[in-house]
Amino acid sequence: MILIFLGTAGSGKTTITASFGGYLEKNGNSVGYVNLDTGVKKLPYKPDIDVRDIITVEELMKEGYGPNGAIVESYDRLLSHADEILSGILELDEELDYLLIDTPGQMESFLFHEFGMRITSGLKEPLAAYLFGPDILRRPSDYCFVKFFAIMIDLRLGTTTVPVLNKVDLIREEELSSIRRLLEDIDYLNARLKLDPSMQGFLAYRICSFLPEVSPPVRVVYASAKTGEGFDELETLSYEHYCTCGDLT
Amino acid sequence: MILIFLGTAGSGKTTITASFGGYLEKNGNSVGYVNLDTGVKKLPYKPDIDVRDIITVEELMKEGYGPNGAIVESYDRLLSHADEILSGILELDEELDYLLIDTPGQMESFLFHEFGMRITSGLKEPLAAYLFGPDILRRPSDYCFVKFFAIMIDLRLGTTTVPVLNKVDLIREEELSSIRRLLEDIDYLNARLKLDPSMQGFLAYRICSFLPEVSPPVRVVYASAKTGEGFDELETLSYEHYCTCGDLT
Repeated sequence: MILIFLGTAGSGKTTITASFGGYLEKNGNSVGYVNLDTGVKKLPYKPDIDVRDIITVEELMKEGYGPNGAIVESYDRLLSHADEILSGILELDEELDYLLIDTPGQMESFLFHEFGMRITSGLKEPLAAYLFGPDILRRPSDYCFVKFFAIMIDLRLGTTTVPVLNKVDLIREEELSSIRRLLEDIDYLNARLKLDPSMQGFLAYRICSFLPEVSPPVRVVYASAKTGEGFDELETLSYEHYCTCGDLT
Repeated sequence: MILIFLGTAGSGKTTITASFGGYLEKNGNSVGYVNLDTGVKKLPYKPDIDVRDIITVEELMKEGYGPNGAIVESYDRLLSHADEILSGILELDEELDYLLIDTPGQMESFLFHEFGMRITSGLKEPLAAYLFGPDILRRPSDYCFVKFFAIMIDLRLGTTTVPVLNKVDLIREEELSSIRRLLEDIDYLNARLKLDPSMQGFLAYRICSFLPEVSPPVRVVYASAKTGEGFDELETLSYEHYCTCGDLT
């Protein structure tokens, strides 16, 4: 089973790759780790495949690139190695129970770059976990943004995508229950959006009203890479996805 | 008038800021330049406001951060300066005909970070130009992705967003006319999507069928920061947006 962790820089991909992997191993599974981030300095897990063996952002910066240019250039250069990386991943997946893929620090290096599509399109039924933090959920329209963003990932990479609210250990109980309601109860979210008189609120309302028609309501996972909360749910989802090929309603 | 250039690293934001600004100045306009990219090394324009006066990614990397961590940290630190940056922008906007804002190298540092929302929500009727290159348009579903991504920017930042296909100088004439048809003729795009038997194709078809209901068909600009192609259209759009407050159908 292949699980890809995706999310913006700082969303906790690397930490959850290590801690969820540790959880799976403790439960008796064999687990492989793939690092696709050319910019990470230290990893809290031992990667079986590591793109930094081919190229790193820091090397490119020493060649004179700025940080943004170096990130883009690193994936341009990895493109010619995409087939060998993919074969390595497929081989590991045959041998092991779980394969966890930690993606580039900047999500756009994966979503918008040919490299990300080359890797994901070669995988058999991968499940993507789209990590986001509570900090991006400030207004009702942000909930609509997050839900649609998961669908955008599906559309771009062809993966089934589960939204994972990470860092729930940072949220108080009452706040979490309000977040859960806005993420799970589409009628409630729409009622809240209807009260927003801004153009943004109106756009969010139209987009969200349409959500159930575009995509079935995929479950949201509430996780903490720190405390292990939600790991049982993530394991169940990975397994269900593997058995049912993508139906996670 | 404020025009914000947005797009992934390498989409040409900085180059078009300089060359479109030069074009506007040549036509007798007074133009101001704002750089919000903490990671850029050299700018081809002279910024009136430059976030690198406050913090740079390279400084943070010298403190020990990796490139991704340094990018995130730079915007975390800029957050406490958001009000002063915003006042500076509003003051310049009063004095000048055009104000061009060049955003962070990594688009997600702007779209997903509180800093981007703080800046954009304080601006009066800004127009955002969402730059993308022909390299991300490989399959019909990618056209759907790009069109919806512009709406996602609207939703997140509350800006009116114009999709700008940049680097058209790199495309052959026949290729460009095929791209234009897929970007502009939604019925044609839907007919193509209907032929795609993959899950991804089916999702794209459902999303695209719904597009006209969510958002009126905004015009697409075909531009080249190198040759100046499309600059007249971009100028017209900025002006129309300013006069009609957002109706760019």
